[in-house]
Amino acid sequence: MAYTAESVEHLAAQFAQLPGIGRKTAYRLALYVLKMDKEEVVSLARALVNAKEKIRYCSVCSNITETDPCGICSNAKRDRTVICVVEEPSDVLALEKTNEFKGLYHVLGGVLSPLDGIGPEDLRIKELLGRVSSSSVDEIILAMNPNVEGEATTLYLSKLLKPLVGKVTRVARGLPVGSDLEYADEATLSRALEGRIAV
Amino acid sequence: MAYTAESVEHLAAQFAQLPGIGRKTAYRLALYVLKMDKEEVVSLARALVNAKEKIRYCSVCSNITETDPCGICSNAKRDRTVICVVEEPSDVLALEKTNEFKGLYHVLGGVLSPLDGIGPEDLRIKELLGRVSSSSVDEIILAMNPNVEGEATTLYLSKLLKPLVGKVTRVARGLPVGSDLEYADEATLSRALEGRIAV
Repeated sequence: MAYTAESVEHLAAQFAQLPGIGRKTAYRLALYVLKMDKEEVVSLARALVNAKEKIRYCSVCSNITETDPCGICSNAKRDRTVICVVEEPSDVLALEKTNEFKGLYHVLGGVLSPLDGIGPEDLRIKELLGRVSSSSVDEIILAMNPNVEGEATTLYLSKLLKPLVGKVTRVARGLPVGSDLEYADEATLSRALEGRIAV
Repeated sequence: MAYTAESVEHLAAQFAQLPGIGRKTAYRLALYVLKMDKEEVVSLARALVNAKEKIRYCSVCSNITETDPCGICSNAKRDRTVICVVEEPSDVLALEKTNEFKGLYHVLGGVLSPLDGIGPEDLRIKELLGRVSSSSVDEIILAMNPNVEGEATTLYLSKLLKPLVGKVTRVARGLPVGSDLEYADEATLSRALEGRIAV
């Protein structure tokens, strides 16, 4: 764009690299930064570099953490006999917010996706099998996203895990709370019927 | 949120301060930053501080710039007899993209908004009047946003400027190109009728 200041152009280009931020939003953010106090901008810049420098992956569960092992793996109050397998660190966040699960996690770092060239060796599956065989795990809960790749990964992992663990479960698929049966898609309704439980 | 790394929490909180970025998007961005290369993160952080440090406001038109006067004000090819008055630097960007306007700009830095406590003394109106009286300006184009505050500012400025400039105009309000007459609101249609021109 002609006649804009170069440093604003550059900042907007940097913002536009982030996910979900298009060219227009990037410009809006860049122009907003110019209105912020100098200290606020420095604080944001520092938070960026700081997060990148401090964050490690937990050597046990592969979740993001500043301490190794992470707060969950090193917490004596968590139930060590149950491991919940998820795709990404953000899934751990989502599950922790429910306050329902008191076991440990294992972050795979993705799902099987042959089209994207992601095979079993690209995920932290070896580490999961290692954890299962070295400690007394009673149950593995598979909590992949309910889509094609998640489904394939769930099936793949369940086959690997069933000989090693007493109980391999998966999170229920069904009607989301607050939704409308009338507007649910066929696949979701089928799963909801399949997974019906006694009242 | 429990059990997330503190520096990620902090970064997400910083992102959430930006306009249009909610709590969920802020977390998504923060987790994305962890996946970026170290150099990319440093480059983003540097672009932030750099933009904030280098950007000044042009002493003539108040547009954002790295040099003073800005690229537009110092460009000998621009028509110095026409000044287009806009609210924000982003409006200059939008108008420049049309490649239609070859005059100069004046950025007010906002609009009159008594409810937000913004009066004439908070905008760069004095500077505009100064420019008009010190140089030979033939036309002032008022290009405020077509909403209540923009309207009020347009009327206020036109009263001030009419005694000083030969021609005070405003940008046309009417049907946006590519839109549907059927779905246009009444106010827009009224303006489109009022502003009709000979074919």
